[in-house]
Amino acid sequence: MATSSTEPSTNSDSQQAKPFGWDISDKIAGEVTKTDVWSVFSPLAGHVPKDSLNLGQGFMNWAPPKFIQQAHAEALERVEANHYQLPRGNVRLRKALSKYLSHSFKRDLDPNTEIQITAGANEGMYAFATAFIRPGDEVILFEPYFDQYVPQVTFNGGVPVFVPIRAPPAATDGNVPASEWRVDLAELRKAITPRTKMIWTNSPHNPIGKVFTEDELRAIGQVAEEHDLMILADEVYDCLTFDKREHIRIAALDDFWRRTVTVGSAGKSFSATGWRIGWAVGPANLIHPLMAAQTRIVFCCNGPAQEAVASGVEQALENGFFEDQVRAYEERRDVLLEGLDKLGLPYTVPEGAYFVLVNTSRLEIPDDFVVPDMLKGRARDWVVAWFVAQTAKVVLIPPTDFYSKEHWDLGKDWIRVAFCKDTDTLRAATDRLLTLKPYIRSA
Amino acid sequence: MATSSTEPSTNSDSQQAKPFGWDISDKIAGEVTKTDVWSVFSPLAGHVPKDSLNLGQGFMNWAPPKFIQQAHAEALERVEANHYQLPRGNVRLRKALSKYLSHSFKRDLDPNTEIQITAGANEGMYAFATAFIRPGDEVILFEPYFDQYVPQVTFNGGVPVFVPIRAPPAATDGNVPASEWRVDLAELRKAITPRTKMIWTNSPHNPIGKVFTEDELRAIGQVAEEHDLMILADEVYDCLTFDKREHIRIAALDDFWRRTVTVGSAGKSFSATGWRIGWAVGPANLIHPLMAAQTRIVFCCNGPAQEAVASGVEQALENGFFEDQVRAYEERRDVLLEGLDKLGLPYTVPEGAYFVLVNTSRLEIPDDFVVPDMLKGRARDWVVAWFVAQTAKVVLIPPTDFYSKEHWDLGKDWIRVAFCKDTDTLRAATDRLLTLKPYIRSA
Repeated sequence: MATSSTEPSTNSDSQQAKPFGWDISDKIAGEVTKTDVWSVFSPLAGHVPKDSLNLGQGFMNWAPPKFIQQAHAEALERVEANHYQLPRGNVRLRKALSKYLSHSFKRDLDPNTEIQITAGANEGMYAFATAFIRPGDEVILFEPYFDQYVPQVTFNGGVPVFVPIRAPPAATDGNVPASEWRVDLAELRKAITPRTKMIWTNSPHNPIGKVFTEDELRAIGQVAEEHDLMILADEVYDCLTFDKREHIRIAALDDFWRRTVTVGSAGKSFSATGWRIGWAVGPANLIHPLMAAQTRIVFCCNGPAQEAVASGVEQALENGFFEDQVRAYEERRDVLLEGLDKLGLPYTVPEGAYFVLVNTSRLEIPDDFVVPDMLKGRARDWVVAWFVAQTAKVVLIPPTDFYSKEHWDLGKDWIRVAFCKDTDTLRAATDRLLTLKPYIRSA
Repeated sequence: MATSSTEPSTNSDSQQAKPFGWDISDKIAGEVTKTDVWSVFSPLAGHVPKDSLNLGQGFMNWAPPKFIQQAHAEALERVEANHYQLPRGNVRLRKALSKYLSHSFKRDLDPNTEIQITAGANEGMYAFATAFIRPGDEVILFEPYFDQYVPQVTFNGGVPVFVPIRAPPAATDGNVPASEWRVDLAELRKAITPRTKMIWTNSPHNPIGKVFTEDELRAIGQVAEEHDLMILADEVYDCLTFDKREHIRIAALDDFWRRTVTVGSAGKSFSATGWRIGWAVGPANLIHPLMAAQTRIVFCCNGPAQEAVASGVEQALENGFFEDQVRAYEERRDVLLEGLDKLGLPYTVPEGAYFVLVNTSRLEIPDDFVVPDMLKGRARDWVVAWFVAQTAKVVLIPPTDFYSKEHWDLGKDWIRVAFCKDTDTLRAATDRLLTLKPYIRSA
């Protein structure tokens, strides 16, 4: 990181203050020196054993379905698919999304003004933040949060304000359904100030696996209404709800549509996290500024992949792909939970998305276990994740990176396990986890 | 645009001040109400005749070469290519670029620290701006500039300061080589203040077609050195220089490397403008903050396309693709210039990139020619482009969008013609342009 010693700067007087040779922006200052969780807990990164099984980062170990692959290969043959696309996105894809999503949004989505294609849901959220956050605007984020939210807010001058989704007390002693993790409405109301501009929601929730109920979403939406706040709804796992649970969109409740932008993801929907295609849905008056921002940030999104996703959505509506996919994820979840039952640590049963939070309070790490310097200053969950990787050769994700430091206590005894992996890998990984048994204190 | 009438806002008192229902960010305020040049001068947009021939926006009317298409289709078959990529970019692509680019950068580029893959060169520049521009920092932009530069600077708090590249006086009367358009060094020096942070260069230049000489680049670099400024070198047309002219990289001259980030483009290099793959090259201490910014903006780039470009670069180094491509562009340029000779308007002969600036001073638009309201307040070149589109059914780009308003005079008598189109289209388009003959005053 500290390359300034080999790359001498002309302004050597201020060398100390300018480790990169020139002043960097304040927004990036907190980013350049930290080692993020993905760079440590990935077998590719060279820190954890290379032969670890990876239940860490949330990507699938299978390719996108054949019918969308085929559409992608065909798009490559067409001249115009390979060139600049409309900044708003491929027309066919917007029409297909309107057909796919209108039912759950409870309105006929206008593909010309209410749907924007984005370079992944991530960039869609970044563009939303760029369009609407003004310096000093406060943004309510529920903890644990997807770690990109904070820089999305701060890079654009916003101030994150954190409200935890709290686990039930029973979660330390036994398994609980994700539905029992709850937002305390009083806590939410207390977090609101005259500077509050928006609330960011996430359902199905990463990493809790909670699918927010209609009542819960309505309560959050009513707070937004009372204070005239915008809502950014991260619903990238919308097609992954289990046990016939319905995904409820906050934008479809009451009159919340007009204050809400909802983001979705082709990567999550079609097992193509590397294609970088997402979408933002909302009223024209919110989508237009988002598009204006995105036009300047990325101009447009990958053409062949947009065409492939368009065909994928069209076909999925006919061939039952999404229903089959839910069944396959339910099986993967069940295989993982069965393995965790053998291990004997309590967990939260997910209702959606593809993560399980496991409570590690009863895992006792030997006093003489040595951790590397890069873990200094981190919460207990980082040490646990390191111990698991070294001992069981399974990579998991410590969740305190999804909490503000003041709330690390809420995350330090949990670890995130991803089940977007085939069942053989999940079985092999849970078998490996059994090597942790000797370190688990009985309940 | 003004959707507020159909989408009532709760804060109706301030409806006038909030046309989008909520406050939008200052950075986006100038963006949401303007109709950009691409949205007017494109046959798809519905303003100019749909059956126009499009020599406007700079994309090719052919597909990427077979050998890279093939590599792309193969990448789709591999699981890992379809999932999250390293934020820094595909390892094979970075190695291939190191092999391809090290010669022209006159140093062995380290693929691990000195090359960053970006979501198009556009997003690479945006990430650079995000990483290094602090509020109030001044950025020198040479005019005419690629229109994305200004929001890239202003969205990140910077202040653009404009220095024109001036046409030679003879350019109005007859053809001139692009080399005769020059930066006045005194003017450049005068533009520098204590707030100046960086200079953005562009060679080969869009739209002039100028390939900056070693002496010119050295003079600019020396100014940067004297004032300890960073350099952002937009060299997306680096592989398109004509008549055996060598592309010189400012980063390869003297000691400028350590203050320079250079961006390049797979879209321009491989006729795949819709793939959104570019790269940024520079010293590790500049690439690291850029990567940190990009990680939060887009996280990573499209996986299959990165793998395809990697293979494309590897193969192009063996099969002479870039040399053949230059010859093909030289032929396209010559076909266009031959057609323009018949038309009889003077032009600037490009030495690189794929645009020709034509001087329209002698084109006389009839007094009774009616232009639509959306052209109100625009410079003469917009009227000329509209007249050409309606009269000859050829779409061209008015270049004053590439000038600050104070310098519209320098662009108002020019029009940009793209020749990244097949020779049949170029011949057909120049034939159509002959319908303008009756409106051209003799020299």
